[in-house]
Formats: sequence, C-alpha cells, structure tokens
Amino acid sequence: MSKDVVNFNAGPAGLPRKALERARDEMMDFEGTGMSVMEHSHRGKHYEKVHREAIALTKSLMGVPDTHDILFVQGGASQLFATVPMNFLQKDGSADYIVTGTWSKKALSEAKLLGKTKVAGKGGEGDTFTRIPRQDELSLDPAANYLHYTTNNTIAGTQYQEIPDAKGVPLVADMSSDIMWKPIDVSKFSLIYAGAQKNIGPSGVVLVIIEKSWMEKGRQDIPVIFRFKTHAEAESLYNTPPTFGIYMMRNVLSVIAEQGGLVGIETKNRKKSALLYAAIDESGGYYRSPVETASRSHMNVVWRLPSEELENKFVKEAEAADMTGLKGHRAVGGVRASIYNAVTVAGVEKLVSFMADFKKRNG
Amino acid sequence: MSKDVVNFNAGPAGLPRKALERARDEMMDFEGTGMSVMEHSHRGKHYEKVHREAIALTKSLMGVPDTHDILFVQGGASQLFATVPMNFLQKDGSADYIVTGTWSKKALSEAKLLGKTKVAGKGGEGDTFTRIPRQDELSLDPAANYLHYTTNNTIAGTQYQEIPDAKGVPLVADMSSDIMWKPIDVSKFSLIYAGAQKNIGPSGVVLVIIEKSWMEKGRQDIPVIFRFKTHAEAESLYNTPPTFGIYMMRNVLSVIAEQGGLVGIETKNRKKSALLYAAIDESGGYYRSPVETASRSHMNVVWRLPSEELENKFVKEAEAADMTGLKGHRAVGGVRASIYNAVTVAGVEKLVSFMADFKKRNG
Repeated sequence: MSKDVVNFNAGPAGLPRKALERARDEMMDFEGTGMSVMEHSHRGKHYEKVHREAIALTKSLMGVPDTHDILFVQGGASQLFATVPMNFLQKDGSADYIVTGTWSKKALSEAKLLGKTKVAGKGGEGDTFTRIPRQDELSLDPAANYLHYTTNNTIAGTQYQEIPDAKGVPLVADMSSDIMWKPIDVSKFSLIYAGAQKNIGPSGVVLVIIEKSWMEKGRQDIPVIFRFKTHAEAESLYNTPPTFGIYMMRNVLSVIAEQGGLVGIETKNRKKSALLYAAIDESGGYYRSPVETASRSHMNVVWRLPSEELENKFVKEAEAADMTGLKGHRAVGGVRASIYNAVTVAGVEKLVSFMADFKKRNG
Repeated sequence: MSKDVVNFNAGPAGLPRKALERARDEMMDFEGTGMSVMEHSHRGKHYEKVHREAIALTKSLMGVPDTHDILFVQGGASQLFATVPMNFLQKDGSADYIVTGTWSKKALSEAKLLGKTKVAGKGGEGDTFTRIPRQDELSLDPAANYLHYTTNNTIAGTQYQEIPDAKGVPLVADMSSDIMWKPIDVSKFSLIYAGAQKNIGPSGVVLVIIEKSWMEKGRQDIPVIFRFKTHAEAESLYNTPPTFGIYMMRNVLSVIAEQGGLVGIETKNRKKSALLYAAIDESGGYYRSPVETASRSHMNVVWRLPSEELENKFVKEAEAADMTGLKGHRAVGGVRASIYNAVTVAGVEKLVSFMADFKKRNG
C-alpha cells in the first residue's frame, strides 16, 4: 500500500487515481491485444479509437462548436508561443498581447522575434503581477491580427474571471493552467491552447481548439509541420503523435465526464479555492495573499507568512505530513498550493487544517 | 495471462517487456513517493534522477564524446526536418541532402521552404527507392552548411552500412529508425536526431546528439524554443519535457545496457535480419526482395509474394497467428517486417517458420 500523498505540484501535477489505475491495468495488454497501447501503430484501429475518443470527450465536455477543430500537438505551450505568431502574425500586421505574468511575457517575447507586437494591457507594475487588468484598462488595436492573453497565471496566482472583449479581433488564449476547470463559451475564441500537464493529462501533449475559418488565414510560408492547418487536415495524425500522452488524456477526460463534466468539476474547484482563501483571510493576517481579491486564481493559490523562515518551515512540515509541492515559485517565493482538477476537496481540507495547526504552533 | 504477440510494427513499435513491467509496477507509487512518475515536477529530485539517468545511459551506450551534448526535444523527427535548417541553414548558405526515401524527401521539402538546398545523391529512380547511393555517386558541395541523410529507410527497406564521408562538411543524420541498433562513431556527426518510437522508447520524445562547437553557430534570429542551444543550456529542462516518455526511454535503455549494450544488440539484430533474408533468398523466388543486396536494411525487411492476393492472405494469416504489423507501407505495398531492437530472435524464428509453411500451402 502506497502512502496517501496530496499533490500540490504546479505541473506536471496530480492525475486522477482512476486514470492511472487504468493505465497500470492495461500496461501489458491493451484491450486484449497482448500489447501496450504505446506499442500500437498510430494508424492502427486500436490506437485510433483512443485518439477519436480523446477528441470526442474534449468536444462534449467543452461544448466545442462545429466551427472549431480540436488538435493535439507537441512541444508544450512554450512552442505555441512561437507557432501562434508564425501562423497568424502577418508580415505587415501587428499582434496585441496582454501581459499578466511570466508566461504571457514569454509568449510576447517569442512573437517579438517574428514581427510587430503591442502590449494591450498589464497585470501589475514592472515585474510584479498581482492583478488582472479590467476591460476599461485595455488599449486594443482594432487592426491587430489577434489579441493574446493567459487565462490563469501559475506564478502570480491570478486568473481571469471573465473572457475579455477583443472588440472583434481574433482572441487567442493560453489556458494551460486552467483548461477545463469550468465550462466556457468556446465560440468566443479563435484559438485556445493548453499544455495538458496541469488539468487534463501528462506533459508532452498540447490541446489546441481552433476556429476553422481563422485557421485558413494562416501563413503558408512557414514549415508544413508548424501550420495548424496541417494537423487539422490530418486529424492530428500528420506525424506520429505522443500516443501514450493522448491515451492518458483520454483516461483523465473520461474520469471528468463520469464526475459530472465541467459543471461538476467547477463546483468542486470553487469549493477548494473557497476553503483555502477563507483559511488565509480568516487567519488575522498571519497568512497574507498578495493578490487583488477580484483577480484571485482558483487554480494556484499563493500566500505569504510573517517571515521567509516560517514559509520554509511551513513547506517542510507540510511535506513531512505528505502534502507535496507547496513551495512558491523561485521567482516570487512564499507558499503556493496548485489545486488543479485532480486535487480532491479532502486534500484541501487536510491542508487547511494543517494551516490552522501551524499558525497555532508558530503564531 | 495475455497472449504472446510478435510485434512487427514500423513504429510506434514493440518495447522490451521488462521496460513496460517496470512502468506498470511503479505506476501508482514511483520509488516510494506515493505518486506516479508523471505526477512529479520536472524540476523535482525524483524526476531529475530519471532525466539524468536517461542522458547518462545514452552517453555510455553510444559512447558520446564530451564534444557533444545529448538533448531531448519534442515534435517528432518531422519537427527536426524544420528546426535543423532553421538553426543551421544560413541566409546566404546552402544545404546538401541525400534523398533515399519518403522521410529524406520530407526533410528536404521543409528545408526548401527555409532556404537554398541541393540534392547531393539519390537512392533510386524517380520515387522508387531501392538502394543507397555509393560514396562515388555523391555530388557534394564543399561549401554546404551541412550534409543531411537518413540512415535507415523504413518504407524502402534500405539502410546505410557505412557512414558517408561528408568531406569536412557538418554531417547531420536522421537515425529515427535505426538509432542504437549497433555501435557507431558519434564523433563523425555534427547532429544526430531520432524519434524514440522505433528502437528506444515511446513516441513523443526525440533524442538529439549535437556537436557543441557547431551548435554555437546556430542562428539567433529564430524563436528561442527552436534553438538547440536553448535546450542544451537548460539540460532539456527549458520547458516541461515529456517526462513519462523520457522515463520510458530510460527503462528501455536500462534493458539494452543489461543485455550487453550496443554490441549485444547488434549481434541479436544481425541474427534476426540474417534469418529473414535467408528465408527470402532461399525461397526459390517465391519471396522476392526489391532491395539491392548491399543496401538491405537490418531494421525493416520488405518483400513481395507472387501476387497481391497472396500478400494480403499472408498478412492476414500471420495476424491470426499473433504476428502483427506485417503489412507493407501503403505507398509501396508488399510485406514488411520491422525488426527493431525489442523484437526477439524467437519472434523472427516464428515468422520464418510461418513463411516456410505459408509457401508450402500456397506455393
């Protein structure tokens, strides 16, 4: 019997036990074939069924309209930071970026290497990101090729609560750290991308949802492998996909579907974040959130203690009590609990109770 | 008990049972951590150990000199078809390509989108590839930025038996389908790349071995994520790597190391290909190899039967006898047995005996 660990890692993150157990049980013999799923040809009927099921589950869970294609690509969201402008930043065009943290800065910096960009809004002063800019603070270029933003910021602990109004410009969102945390209106986006390794699977797969009519406008003077159109036309089988990663994503999405889909997961996720923010807010200032209340993330809850020494002690004692991954990102310090889809309410209750106890002992 | 299948898939292909069993046994609890390896942070000590071990095993198995870096990247070899010229085809330069089949054609066609290229040699007439060009047939540009070739051609069933002499030009090899099938002199290459999914792991990971001094000459006007230097400097942790894929590669390389390393695997591989080619050559013309004898692949053995009907019957009956993946590529037809590292001698003996029996019944 293995120990019962609560995994608060920022990503790669915890996965539903059931999704992992399925992988374990099928490892040596996938559906009676005598082979592991990762030993099957990506063009054979056994893998193909998994591939189509992963697409179908994404479509039904997120309510993806027929105007959009669902793709699986490789290279992580960091690769999309480059391939989005390669495809859609036209030679004589410009792209708008809202900068709310480390990841949107990286996305902007890759785009800058490829063409003209503008910063349409910022989530804080200098390199300190503590809030999401309001709609009336945005300065949007009506002629932009697209508007790019990051829906949730893992390091800053901020998250968009509403979809920004792009005023008719194609909207592109990096949803790596909050994809499928709740239902959203996919039709508002021209492109959504998300590395799987936080909410929906292991690392090595990026989910892309792209508006077909916009995809057609993609540049043709770039390598074939980097055109979204290539992968759409081949149903993400242009070249060998990361078959085991997509299989694991299928397993995770099946579990989400069984547990009430995105409505069910949102209820659970809101309960978890409410528990944690209450523990912070009701600590009489012992635990402090550096984030503007309206911008608080439901995925990555960050907070400080009265001193760095206490923060280190907190993380160390939590680890000893089988709560792992609580150290804040090295860029900002403090404590961070990443409470993605697979973290249970019971796991957060354990942390909240530890917080109360720690404060009593060290207050 | 699952059935005993011989997996002749062209890729993704069979993996050593032991490597898969290890993954199964550790799935729910990796080294006593209570978590799966794919739930660990890529920056945590538990995954880091696996990552370093995969690099160390590659270094020792292949004898990679200190002049070269070992990287793991994503996107499949198809992505490297683009990133190699993005990095190394200079604005005023030209690159040489030897074209010996479908994959080298694809590599050339991505390079053409990015700059000037020359065909330095061909492996057949038109689109029929039945041989490897001899050294004296190559027309090498002494000023080329690099010479690119494909060491083994999965569809044509041809393979280089010697490393071509690039006459001082940096040599780049796509070794996706025969990496680590035998020892090679890595120092002769400026860049080796290989999708893992044939000889050394699952799909979703590309192994890159690159000469450091040459890497420094890579272009700086391309996105950061596509520069080999980026991944070398970050020890392949610039962004989240496909952790489970690298873990599986580690498991596979461990098995190869235990079984006598690349010398051991070469002995086994030569025995397998000798058995199969003997079965073809000694069939009195019933089984025919379309490949020039000196160019025959030790990884993908292709052959024809007297008619397409018999070929279909052969593949179908073999499948019923638990030998899977024998259908030739749709582009060329016929029969193909991919006998990568993980296929056992016993598996090939079973096929050879089936071939004799099939001929007797249908001769």
